[in-house]
Amino acid sequence: MASYLITGTSQGLGLALTTKLLSLPASQVSHIFALTRSAPSPDLQKLLDAHSDRSTSVIASVTDGPAVAAAVKQVSSALGDKGLDVLINNAGAADANPGGMRSVKAEQMKELFELDVVGVQTVTAAFLPLLEKGMEKKIVNISTSLASISLAAHTHFAPTYAYKVSKAAVNMLTVQYSLDLKDQGFTVFALTPGWLKTKLGGVDYAHLTVEQGAGEVVRIVREATPEKNGKLLNIKVPGYKFGEIEAYDGGEIPW
Amino acid sequence: MASYLITGTSQGLGLALTTKLLSLPASQVSHIFALTRSAPSPDLQKLLDAHSDRSTSVIASVTDGPAVAAAVKQVSSALGDKGLDVLINNAGAADANPGGMRSVKAEQMKELFELDVVGVQTVTAAFLPLLEKGMEKKIVNISTSLASISLAAHTHFAPTYAYKVSKAAVNMLTVQYSLDLKDQGFTVFALTPGWLKTKLGGVDYAHLTVEQGAGEVVRIVREATPEKNGKLLNIKVPGYKFGEIEAYDGGEIPW
Ligand SMILES: NC(=O)c1ccc[n+]([C@@H]2O[C@H](COP(=O)([O-])OP(=O)(O)OC[C@H]3O[C@@H](n4cnc5c(N)ncnc54)[C@H](OP(=O)(O)O)[C@@H]3O)[C@@H](O)[C@H]2O)c1
Ligand SMILES: NC(=O)c1ccc[n+]([C@@H]2O[C@H](COP(=O)([O-])OP(=O)(O)OC[C@H]3O[C@@H](n4cnc5c(N)ncnc54)[C@H](OP(=O)(O)O)[C@@H]3O)[C@@H](O)[C@H]2O)c1
Repeated sequence: MASYLITGTSQGLGLALTTKLLSLPASQVSHIFALTRSAPSPDLQKLLDAHSDRSTSVIASVTDGPAVAAAVKQVSSALGDKGLDVLINNAGAADANPGGMRSVKAEQMKELFELDVVGVQTVTAAFLPLLEKGMEKKIVNISTSLASISLAAHTHFAPTYAYKVSKAAVNMLTVQYSLDLKDQGFTVFALTPGWLKTKLGGVDYAHLTVEQGAGEVVRIVREATPEKNGKLLNIKVPGYKFGEIEAYDGGEIPW
Repeated sequence: MASYLITGTSQGLGLALTTKLLSLPASQVSHIFALTRSAPSPDLQKLLDAHSDRSTSVIASVTDGPAVAAAVKQVSSALGDKGLDVLINNAGAADANPGGMRSVKAEQMKELFELDVVGVQTVTAAFLPLLEKGMEKKIVNISTSLASISLAAHTHFAPTYAYKVSKAAVNMLTVQYSLDLKDQGFTVFALTPGWLKTKLGGVDYAHLTVEQGAGEVVRIVREATPEKNGKLLNIKVPGYKFGEIEAYDGGEIPW
């Protein structure tokens, strides 16, 4: 029985994660706080309406400190004495710069860093007191294989240079939290959901449906024990490659 | 015989690198472009005056796109038909957040990212056409052992969280350039200069003098061949530790 806050739930992976978690019984998922930057999309609203006993809409841009602080108040009073069990930092965006690293503009780098890294920092730091009161103490940052510097030669085909730079930064942020919070029993990890058919992943070339990705993410998050603290985890879906390497081997991705 | 552009040369490692390179004969170092964000410090000015035949002051903040574009024009016309041989991205700053990752403020993360990552991007992208015309085709990004996610448990003592996050991002940026430019014969790498007694490193606790660090950086930059493309290199100075690991083993640092 765990409560979750998920960011970026109006579409894509965030919506699929919310759908998947709400399909589990209340004995496993007690409450979902579905954060969006503006009013929930029609798809999300329908889902929340169908599970109004254990889901709550929370509206805040992850890059807006005061809005996130207000979201913490809202979630805290909904939880009463209880803490928040699991935070999934999912909101994010990517760039497309087929001209290579040299073609990435300063403004675009800053914008993506603000959403993909500072957004994670703002939400995580703000919800940490509630997570400290929680039973599971899990913080999950949705990262990507493209964030692996070690694998960069295999993923060089992807023209998302500012995104790669920002997601490598998120990996470091994840590991710093994992070290800071280890002694309190936290499990803080990064996770790649696979290359998914979403607005970000692109529907034409991506490997997996968003439901496949969400299924694996939910499985890994629920199974994770403190032994996974500070790691970058991969989903397990055989049959796909990045260059010469197996794309989704269910193991750890090297930094 | 190589020309160099070095950023952040008014003090610290940048000043020591400029000093060291200008101590080498003109047959090895033909010209130094010493970039500073404002007028050169008295120490730098004295050095430039003593070597006015093969050194030039270039004033531009690395975060100011138009100023960096003007710097490219200045360097280009000083070089005439020749290209620029070596770029050393050295300018940078760090934070101090003893309260842990959770205590890092959004504004500070953004400011450091702008200087430590977007500054490197702005300078590198702008000078790339001149570097393509150069003979050595070397781009050296001054990074740090603290940027290694793999070694994070050993360097957790350093309360520079936003800096670690930004420098991990620089490592990814470095590797992206190394992949983009490999076929043109470039050698693009990141390098830790060691923990140095500078404003940034702190004079009380740091391991090495800035001259030791600069000596090692100059040695490694001059020796580097394309085989070092895309790596994070360590200096070689025996006798120092980060936690249980040898700090400066002269090898490659894992990502
Ligand atoms: N798709 C892939 O192939 C893939 C692969 C690896 C990792 N990932 C990661 O998975 C996560 C989700 O990606 P996705 O593919 O689902 O992308 P997506 O379909 O574009 O969805 C991104 C979500 O983030 C929300 N968002 C954007 N800015 C926000 C802000 N400031 N505050 C709150 N929410 C905000 C968006 O809101 P709106 O709906 O209002 O625009 C949207 O709901 C990202 O972190 C991404 O990096 C995706
Ligand atoms: N010291 C260490 O222990 C250590 C360890 C590992 C890596 N590093 C790296 O080594 C590099 C140099 O560090 P340091 O120890 O020499 O630091 P430092 O003594 O603080 O010097 C930093 C230099 O960067 C310049 N700078 C700052 N903002 C700038 C901008 N916007 N445009 C142009 N220049 C700018 C500063 O200019 P002003 O003089 O005008 O302030 C200063 O000259 C950094 O990249 C740092 O991350 C240092």
